[in-house]
Amino acid sequence: MLPILFLFLSLLLLPSSHAADFCVADLTGHLTPSGYECKEESSVTTDDFVFSGLGVPGNTSNIIKAAVTPAFVAQFPGVNGLGISAARLDLAPRGVIPLHTHPAASEFLVVTQGTICAGFISTANNVYYKTLKTGDSMLFPQGLLHFQVNGDGTKAMAIVSFSSPSPGLQITAFALFANNLPSALVETVTFLDDAEVKKLKKLLGGTG
Amino acid sequence: MLPILFLFLSLLLLPSSHAADFCVADLTGHLTPSGYECKEESSVTTDDFVFSGLGVPGNTSNIIKAAVTPAFVAQFPGVNGLGISAARLDLAPRGVIPLHTHPAASEFLVVTQGTICAGFISTANNVYYKTLKTGDSMLFPQGLLHFQVNGDGTKAMAIVSFSSPSPGLQITAFALFANNLPSALVETVTFLDDAEVKKLKKLLGGTG
Amino acid sequence: MLPILFLFLSLLLLPSSHAADFCVADLTGHLTPSGYECKEESSVTTDDFVFSGLGVPGNTSNIIKAAVTPAFVAQFPGVNGLGISAARLDLAPRGVIPLHTHPAASEFLVVTQGTICAGFISTANNVYYKTLKTGDSMLFPQGLLHFQVNGDGTKAMAIVSFSSPSPGLQITAFALFANNLPSALVETVTFLDDAEVKKLKKLLGGTG
Amino acid sequence: MLPILFLFLSLLLLPSSHAADFCVADLTGHLTPSGYECKEESSVTTDDFVFSGLGVPGNTSNIIKAAVTPAFVAQFPGVNGLGISAARLDLAPRGVIPLHTHPAASEFLVVTQGTICAGFISTANNVYYKTLKTGDSMLFPQGLLHFQVNGDGTKAMAIVSFSSPSPGLQITAFALFANNLPSALVETVTFLDDAEVKKLKKLLGGTG
Amino acid sequence: MLPILFLFLSLLLLPSSHAADFCVADLTGHLTPSGYECKEESSVTTDDFVFSGLGVPGNTSNIIKAAVTPAFVAQFPGVNGLGISAARLDLAPRGVIPLHTHPAASEFLVVTQGTICAGFISTANNVYYKTLKTGDSMLFPQGLLHFQVNGDGTKAMAIVSFSSPSPGLQITAFALFANNLPSALVETVTFLDDAEVKKLKKLLGGTG
Amino acid sequence: MLPILFLFLSLLLLPSSHAADFCVADLTGHLTPSGYECKEESSVTTDDFVFSGLGVPGNTSNIIKAAVTPAFVAQFPGVNGLGISAARLDLAPRGVIPLHTHPAASEFLVVTQGTICAGFISTANNVYYKTLKTGDSMLFPQGLLHFQVNGDGTKAMAIVSFSSPSPGLQITAFALFANNLPSALVETVTFLDDAEVKKLKKLLGGTG
Repeated sequence: MLPILFLFLSLLLLPSSHAADFCVADLTGHLTPSGYECKEESSVTTDDFVFSGLGVPGNTSNIIKAAVTPAFVAQFPGVNGLGISAARLDLAPRGVIPLHTHPAASEFLVVTQGTICAGFISTANNVYYKTLKTGDSMLFPQGLLHFQVNGDGTKAMAIVSFSSPSPGLQITAFALFANNLPSALVETVTFLDDAEVKKLKKLLGGTG
Repeated sequence: MLPILFLFLSLLLLPSSHAADFCVADLTGHLTPSGYECKEESSVTTDDFVFSGLGVPGNTSNIIKAAVTPAFVAQFPGVNGLGISAARLDLAPRGVIPLHTHPAASEFLVVTQGTICAGFISTANNVYYKTLKTGDSMLFPQGLLHFQVNGDGTKAMAIVSFSSPSPGLQITAFALFANNLPSALVETVTFLDDAEVKKLKKLLGGTG
Repeated sequence: MLPILFLFLSLLLLPSSHAADFCVADLTGHLTPSGYECKEESSVTTDDFVFSGLGVPGNTSNIIKAAVTPAFVAQFPGVNGLGISAARLDLAPRGVIPLHTHPAASEFLVVTQGTICAGFISTANNVYYKTLKTGDSMLFPQGLLHFQVNGDGTKAMAIVSFSSPSPGLQITAFALFANNLPSALVETVTFLDDAEVKKLKKLLGGTG
Repeated sequence: MLPILFLFLSLLLLPSSHAADFCVADLTGHLTPSGYECKEESSVTTDDFVFSGLGVPGNTSNIIKAAVTPAFVAQFPGVNGLGISAARLDLAPRGVIPLHTHPAASEFLVVTQGTICAGFISTANNVYYKTLKTGDSMLFPQGLLHFQVNGDGTKAMAIVSFSSPSPGLQITAFALFANNLPSALVETVTFLDDAEVKKLKKLLGGTG
Repeated sequence: MLPILFLFLSLLLLPSSHAADFCVADLTGHLTPSGYECKEESSVTTDDFVFSGLGVPGNTSNIIKAAVTPAFVAQFPGVNGLGISAARLDLAPRGVIPLHTHPAASEFLVVTQGTICAGFISTANNVYYKTLKTGDSMLFPQGLLHFQVNGDGTKAMAIVSFSSPSPGLQITAFALFANNLPSALVETVTFLDDAEVKKLKKLLGGTG
Repeated sequence: MLPILFLFLSLLLLPSSHAADFCVADLTGHLTPSGYECKEESSVTTDDFVFSGLGVPGNTSNIIKAAVTPAFVAQFPGVNGLGISAARLDLAPRGVIPLHTHPAASEFLVVTQGTICAGFISTANNVYYKTLKTGDSMLFPQGLLHFQVNGDGTKAMAIVSFSSPSPGLQITAFALFANNLPSALVETVTFLDDAEVKKLKKLLGGTG
C-alpha cells in the first residue's frame, strides 16, 4: 500500500515544490517592485529565518546617544515578501531618535526597558505623544513624522515592528542638513534662517 | 489615408507592446514575491493560456482513494500574476481529501459529479460542514482547515478554484507524520500520544 | 485541570471572536471600496458558504442561445472579501457569449460539457483563440475583450471562476446598442455607420 | 424575440446592478480602511465624476505666494476607491510649496505654465532636483520629502496626480511650528536651536 | 564628535542603501507581475524621474485627428512600481479618441485647452457623459468603456493620469477590425453584419 | 501677514481633515473586508494609539503552561487598517504554544527572555526549527503550521508581530478536539484512531 501512497504523495506535493510559501531574498539578485528575487528553495535552511542581530545592543556613543538596529530585508533576507520587518532601538540616558518617517510602513513599538517619550504628528497637524513605560506599546501610522526620546536617566530599549520588509527611514534633520542640498533651497522650503541651516549643515556633515 | 493611420496606430500601440496584460511564467527564470518572471511576450502563444490537465481523471488507487490535480502556476504557467488558479478533485467511493489548508488563497468548490461532504473550521472554532450534491458550490476562506469526503458509494468530482496562482497546500497529517519532525516534538505540540504518532509516522512515511 | 484550561481557551480565542476569517456580505448594508459590510459572525451559518445556483441550467431560449448564471457577491454573499467568485455558462448549439470584458477580474474557464471556441484580444492587438473540448481550461486576463462560442451542434457548458467577488461584466454590443447613448456619438467613437448602429439599437433595445 | 432577449438581458445584468464599477464616496457616511461608504448607485449621476475645482486659480496672496487646490476624496468624492486623485499647484513669482510628504501616495507632476524647480530626497539621503519647464514631468516617490519652487519672475502652474484618493499632505514646517508640540521637544528631535524654533512658531501660529 | 556621528550615520543608513524608495525600470531586464526589475540605485539620476514627452504636441494628422502621448513605464521607466502614470491627449477640431478601455487602471482627466465631450458606460449599462471645458476634470473607472471627442472647431488638449504604471489601452475598433480575428467570428460575437465588418477591416488594416 | 497665512493654512489643510492617516476601529460599528469602520477623527486621542496590555504577564497556570496576550484589532483598535499587530507570549518552564497557524499574517518573533524552541513546516513538507536564545528572532511565513516550546527550566517570553491587524489564530488540536466536529469525521480526515480522538475530545472539551 505504501508505494501507491508515496506515488500519490509525490503527485500531490508537486505544486508545493514550486509554491511561494516564502521568498528568502537573494540580495545579489535583482530587486523588483515587490521585493528581491527569491533564493532557490532547495538551498534555504532554518538559518534563513533566524536573525540574531536584535540581541546585540546598538552603540549609543554618538551625538544622539541612541542607535537603531534594523532587521529589514537588507539585514534579514528572510523577511522578503512577508510584509513585515523589525528593529531594535537603544536609547542611552537623554538619547533621541530624531524626527523621522518610514515612507513605506506603519510601526508598532513595544518598550522593553526603561521609559520613552514617543509621539507623531498627523496630516491634520495634530500632535499625539505620551511617555511610555516598560511594557507599553505605541503605533506610528505610515509615513507620518514621529520621534522617540529617553527623557530619563536610565537606559531604554524598544522592539519596533513594521508592516513592510523595507519600511525605509528618513530622518528629517539628515535629509535637510547631511547632504548637498543647497542651503538657499533648504531655507526657501523650510523657513529656517541661513545661520541655522549653515550651523546644522556643519554639525551633520552637509555641504552646499 | 491608410499610411497615416498606420503611423498613428504604431505610435498609439507602442505602450501596449510593453504592457502587462498578462505575465506567463518562465518557470526556468527567477521567482519574486509577486510571482515568476514573465516569458517574453513575443513568444507567448494561445497554448500558454490553455491547459488540458483538468480533463484527465486523477489516479485514486491510493490510501485516500482520492486525487488532487492542480492547475497552479507550476503546472499552468499562464496563471502567473492573474490572481487565480484551479484544481480538479477526484474522489472514489469513500475517498477523502484529508484535513488541509491553503496558506495563500480562498477556495471556491463546485461539485460536478456525485456527492461530497465538505467543511471548514473557523478561528473561533466553529464548524461549518454540509453534504453537497452535484451542482452545489461551497467556499473555504483563506488559511482555514477544511476537508472533502465522499461518503457515498459512487465516484465524486469537483472543480475548485483559488484566489491565487500559488495557493499552497498543507495537509495536516502529512505535515505531522510524513517528514522528520521528531516524534517527541509532534507529541508536545499536538497532545497526541507517542504510540499514535509513531503509528502514523510509519503509515505515512515519516521518520524521527 | 479543565476549568483552568477553559479559562485559558476563552482568553486565547478572544481575538478570534472578532477576527476576519470571512466577511459574508450584508447586502442590505453599505458597500465600501473593499466590498459590503459583513453580516454579524454570530448569525453566520453553513448555508452562507453554500450556493446551489450553479447546479441549475440557465435558460438559453434567447437571442444568443446562451446564458450566464453568476455566483458573484450579489447572488452569493459568502464570496465578499474572499477575492474569488464563479459563474456557469450554458451554450445551446450555436450559442454565443458575445464579446465582453470583466473590468475587475481575470477569468479561469473549465469546459465541463461539449466544445467551446473561446478567445481574447490583447492590448497589443494580438488574438488568442482556440476550440476547447470537454476538460480543457482557458484563461482570460483582467479587462481584456473575450468571447465564447459553441460552434457545435450539441449543448456546451463551462464553469468559470474570477479573481474578484465582483468581476463586473460589460458586453460590448449592449454597452453600445442597449442604452440611450446617442447614435451619432456611437458612430463617432466606433467608426460604425449610421444604418448599422440604428439596426442594432433596434435589435438590442437601445434608444437615441 | 425581443421579450425573450430582454428577459435574458435583465438576468444577465443582475450582477452588474450590484457591481463595484465605482464607489462614489458618501462623505456623510462611515470611513473604513479602504475609503468611504459608497453613495447608492441609483443616485449617482455624471456630475459625481466631474469636478471643476482644478479650473480655478488658487489664491497666492499669502506667505508662500503659492496655493494647492486639491481634488482628493474630500473635495471630489468620485475618486473614492479608484486609487487616484489630483491637485493643482499655483505658484506666483518666487512662490514656494514648502518641504512636504504625501504619506500615502506617489506623485506625478506636469508643469502646465512657467518654470518650477522641484526635487526630492531619498532615504539614502540623495538629492534629486531639477528646474522643469512647461511640459516637463517629474515623479516624487511615496512618502519622501519633496518641494516645488518658482524661482522665476512669472507665474507657474502644475497639475499633479497621486496614486491614492487620500494621499495626505504633511508640510514639515507646519508639523513642527504650527501646532502645540512643545518647543523643547521640537528642539530635541530636530537639532534646531530655541530661538529659531520660537521664531518659526510665532511666524506659523504654533504654541508651546 | 563628528567621526562618531558619521559612524552612526553609516550604520543607520545601511538599510536605506537597499531600500525600495523607488524602482526605476530596467527595460532591458525581466518583467514580473509587479513590474520590471529595478535599475541599480547607484546609477539612478534625477533624469530618471523627469520626462519631457508630455510637452510635445502629438501628431493629429491622422484618421482620428487625435493623438495619445503616453508616459507609461515603457516611455517613462521612473513610474515602475509607483502605482501611477500619465498621458497627453491632443484633439484637433473634430478629433476623436475612439471607444476604449484601460484594463489595469482608473483614469483622471484634466482638460487643459479647449472643450472635450467625454463619457463612459458602466457595467449596469448606464451612460455618463458630459461636455467638459478647460479646467474641468472627469473620472473613468477601471476597465470601463469610455471615449473623448472634440466636438468643437478649436484644438483641445488634456492631461490624463492613471492608477497604474501600465494601464494598458484597448481601442475597441482596433481590437475588432485591425488584426486577423476572422470576420465570421467578429460578426458572431458583436451582432455586426458582414459588410460592415469587412468595410472596417479594410479601413483599419485588418485581415481575415 | 498672519491672517492671510491662516487663511491659506485652512485651505491647504482641508484635505487632511478628511484624510486617512489612520482609522482607529469603532468596534461597535460595522466590519468590512478591509477592517472596521473608523472612529471619528475628532474624538481620537493619543490613548487610541497606546496599549498597555503587552506589559502584563499572561497567566500560565493552565494545561499548556503558556499564554498568548494579543494586541490584535479586537484588543487594540488603533491597529485597524495599519497592516500590523502584535502579541506577547509567556511560556512557563515546559510551556508550549501548540501547533497552530495564522491564516491571515506572517509572524516575526523576538525572544525577550529565556530560550524557545520554535519551528514551522512548509507546504513542501520541510521542517524548519531551532532553539532560540534571548535576543534571537524567527520568522513564520503566512498560514504555515508552527509552534513554540520552552524546553527549558526557566520562564521564557517573546514579542511577536504580525503583518495584519487581524492575523487569526487556529490551534490545530483545538480545531479538531475542542468543538462538535463528529469524531468519525475527525478520524476520516486525520488518520487518527477513534480512541485517540475521543481521549483528546474529552481532554480539550469537545463533543460529538
